[in-house]
Amino acid sequence: VYEDNQSGTVSILGGTGEQGRGLGRRLAMAGVPVVLGSRDAGRAETVAEEMRTADPGIDVSGASNEVAATVGRIVIVAVPYAGHRELLSGLAGALAGKLVVDCVNPLGFDKRGAHVLAVPEGSAAEEAAAVLPDSRIVAAFHHVSAKLLLEGDGPLDTDVLVVGDDRDAKDEVIRLVEAIKGMRGIDAGALRLAAHVEGMTAALISVNRRYRAHAGLRVTDV
Amino acid sequence: VYEDNQSGTVSILGGTGEQGRGLGRRLAMAGVPVVLGSRDAGRAETVAEEMRTADPGIDVSGASNEVAATVGRIVIVAVPYAGHRELLSGLAGALAGKLVVDCVNPLGFDKRGAHVLAVPEGSAAEEAAAVLPDSRIVAAFHHVSAKLLLEGDGPLDTDVLVVGDDRDAKDEVIRLVEAIKGMRGIDAGALRLAAHVEGMTAALISVNRRYRAHAGLRVTDV
Repeated sequence: VYEDNQSGTVSILGGTGEQGRGLGRRLAMAGVPVVLGSRDAGRAETVAEEMRTADPGIDVSGASNEVAATVGRIVIVAVPYAGHRELLSGLAGALAGKLVVDCVNPLGFDKRGAHVLAVPEGSAAEEAAAVLPDSRIVAAFHHVSAKLLLEGDGPLDTDVLVVGDDRDAKDEVIRLVEAIKGMRGIDAGALRLAAHVEGMTAALISVNRRYRAHAGLRVTDV
Repeated sequence: VYEDNQSGTVSILGGTGEQGRGLGRRLAMAGVPVVLGSRDAGRAETVAEEMRTADPGIDVSGASNEVAATVGRIVIVAVPYAGHRELLSGLAGALAGKLVVDCVNPLGFDKRGAHVLAVPEGSAAEEAAAVLPDSRIVAAFHHVSAKLLLEGDGPLDTDVLVVGDDRDAKDEVIRLVEAIKGMRGIDAGALRLAAHVEGMTAALISVNRRYRAHAGLRVTDV
């Protein structure tokens, strides 16, 4: 049960994409008020309405990314990497003072599969930290299968690695993670390790391809 | 049961270090003939004798790294990263045609914990591939706790991510991994993903520090 911040809205930038919709759905099912942000506010409203129809009783609405950034107490970033830097730069004012949870994987694909794109700051999460100097940045949710988030309502068998330089912010994100049934949040260290958490997604995509799976990670001995 | 290559010796370069001894012990307990290599052949012989005394019946011997590289059908590289390039460069002839399993993590440590060192080729495993052009390179065993390898004889609750560009070589390494009780080998893609598998070790070290654990990884849905 997500008790800490029941009155706090969680916004999701890029909330109409698969990952965004999936996280929004699972958080809303856990009782969290969710705002899906999109470049196209009308599209976000339509998606939110579809979600409310599919899962009656959940509190999901749609808005522009700007409005979503403004109303969210916690703001999850689930946009494709291609638009990541530009979007966040434009929202730096709206996101000032907020807890921003980046789950973007800077990946490219070629005939050999997924690989990691070079990011000047080292990782998408560190890029977010560079363009949002007044926000608290935590990286999480990189490895969670959108398909599993969007289907069914049973528990998800996966851990979420959480990295960042602000321990209180990480603990808050871990509580948010653990609102979702079956998910466990694991503090995996400083923000400078985000590149490896993001990069591991490329390995999991390779696993999915070879084993026809929706692979996730569990940390043993914790 | 490790049936495929019962007559094949597995050598471990850096076999007297914690990781090398731990892997050697577990492989030998699974019936694999093991040669521990070291810069100091006398030290390797002493360590091997101690291991035979502790676990009677296992087939472990000690030798110089040069001899170990020559006699091994599969050669595991478990040296500290600092000496990795130089050691392998000197053994390129002995290792030609062989399956080389690199489990080296290029890590540094400072007051904020573990971080990944810059490797010109991108990863320790790709460095091995660059200096051993006539060997088949697979990367594996990065995340396995030496302490757990060295203690007890119960099953290890961990998966081993295996990356490389030669699928037959990866499958052979997966069989070797699965000779060890409780371990499962998972093909996690191409050698270019080795940096992220190596880097994940820094995250797991952070996990160990925060949770006082010996963390490993399990891949879900496979």
